[in-house]
Amino acid sequence: MEELKVFCPATIANVSCGFDVLGLALAKVGDEMTIKKTREPGITISKIEGQDLPLDTDHNVAGVAAKALLQQLGDSYHGGFDIAIHKKIKPGSGIGSSAASAAGAVAGINQLLDHPFSQTALVRFAMQGEKLASGVAHADNVAPAILGGFTLVRSYEPLDIIKIPTPSLLYATILHPQIEIKTADSRKILKTSITLQSGIKQWGNLGGLIAGLYTNDYELIGRSLEDHIIEPIRSILIPGYDIVKQVALKTGALGVGISGSGPSIFALSKGKETAERVAEKMYDNYDTIGLEFDMHISPIASQGVHLI
Amino acid sequence: MEELKVFCPATIANVSCGFDVLGLALAKVGDEMTIKKTREPGITISKIEGQDLPLDTDHNVAGVAAKALLQQLGDSYHGGFDIAIHKKIKPGSGIGSSAASAAGAVAGINQLLDHPFSQTALVRFAMQGEKLASGVAHADNVAPAILGGFTLVRSYEPLDIIKIPTPSLLYATILHPQIEIKTADSRKILKTSITLQSGIKQWGNLGGLIAGLYTNDYELIGRSLEDHIIEPIRSILIPGYDIVKQVALKTGALGVGISGSGPSIFALSKGKETAERVAEKMYDNYDTIGLEFDMHISPIASQGVHLI
Repeated sequence: MEELKVFCPATIANVSCGFDVLGLALAKVGDEMTIKKTREPGITISKIEGQDLPLDTDHNVAGVAAKALLQQLGDSYHGGFDIAIHKKIKPGSGIGSSAASAAGAVAGINQLLDHPFSQTALVRFAMQGEKLASGVAHADNVAPAILGGFTLVRSYEPLDIIKIPTPSLLYATILHPQIEIKTADSRKILKTSITLQSGIKQWGNLGGLIAGLYTNDYELIGRSLEDHIIEPIRSILIPGYDIVKQVALKTGALGVGISGSGPSIFALSKGKETAERVAEKMYDNYDTIGLEFDMHISPIASQGVHLI
Repeated sequence: MEELKVFCPATIANVSCGFDVLGLALAKVGDEMTIKKTREPGITISKIEGQDLPLDTDHNVAGVAAKALLQQLGDSYHGGFDIAIHKKIKPGSGIGSSAASAAGAVAGINQLLDHPFSQTALVRFAMQGEKLASGVAHADNVAPAILGGFTLVRSYEPLDIIKIPTPSLLYATILHPQIEIKTADSRKILKTSITLQSGIKQWGNLGGLIAGLYTNDYELIGRSLEDHIIEPIRSILIPGYDIVKQVALKTGALGVGISGSGPSIFALSKGKETAERVAEKMYDNYDTIGLEFDMHISPIASQGVHLI
């Protein structure tokens, strides 16, 4: 293959009790990326549609991630790759815009090269893109973007990523308020210590959530989608968060949380109809606030970056 | 049925990263209990073999738990029950001696009455016995003693217990140093706050452990059996802990931890042979310390309290 076009899914990181470890990929929200083999060595980005982002590969997450992959290939590959990105995910939305670009670039190139790298290796390359975007080489968005479904980042040293099964009726509803939260701010307000009691609640809930995902137990998933540690702190940065959460839960959502470090709010529901009803109610409610916002409804993606 | 005899499994609570939420039941270590219907209402304990424990039902965990059950039955049952206990688990060992008695009494009576109560209701009754024993109505031993296998106590309010599958080749090796650790001491030295970073590690590992148990992935189970929060603190109360842990891991154990609040040390291994080799090495090593100790090797119990 000389050229391919891939879908690069948007992702939700910090899924409630899974702060910093649990993420998921969306099937219907994501970027598109066209990658071509080139004779000239190295990476070029020839076009970015939809957003005003740098074409310079040292200042673009897709470029940085792709270069990390090329560097690992070393002398065994003499050509290069050109990337054209159609950004559909808004940067700063909290649904993994940078991760989609980084993941798409490395997973796409890996496919063009007939899969020399494992998925964990690809995550490692894509993490370099995340480092450019946020200063931290975190994996909670790039892991689900590459592997699909739910992923657990058990450990960073060594990098240990576990794909968790996704119940087929699970849908995400996302409300993205068009406000900017600086990553630095959303980090700064976190406490460096937590009570042991809240920690115990959190790992009890994460255990319940993982069990619910393995057994398609939607009620257990719902009971486990709680976060007593991060949500109470970060939600104050998101106007209308508490009200919209209550509305979504009342309408039948299994759980509601902050996507990544916000500002997007996500709800998980059993079945498309419930997810749509939840979206309607969230919409009606948020509309009264007067802020601009986007909404998405999507099943959880069973696969990560893939050919289209 | 007028009378029955049950096996009441010993249990390991606080399984590594599952502090306060994850426990497991042992198939080959436990008490035996004979329960008879009596005409006289109320609970009597006619005999306790193996240990010097009170026959007074208000001061015996089996008595207290059984009375909690009877109270719930109320006027719908007019008779009573007599309990005879053959204690084989040493009190204070950290492998759920009180829980075995409390669980055996309520699960046995429930069976004699043809199962009027759910397992969660039985856990709730048995927790009253735990309250007598340790001052805290905790469920991490009585839940696996009643349900068998691994159990996750996701929440106490409301009580939410999830049975987690047990890979069939999983064996426990237990070393019980004959020292007394006062529960009050092992509680007192715990910190009431932890760092967010160590919390994240802990719930990442618990997620990995639960995933490993669902998928029979022994390597993942092994990688996840880590506890960066409680073990470093409590292990200082257990002479020789660090050395015996290293020996067990070197010999092939998947993981090693403190059973309950100690002093017992447990190792989990894949396969009986490894568990036996681990036991030998732990034995040889601990023998040089000069303290008396017991050892047990057991598969994980697939069922909780059951007829024998």
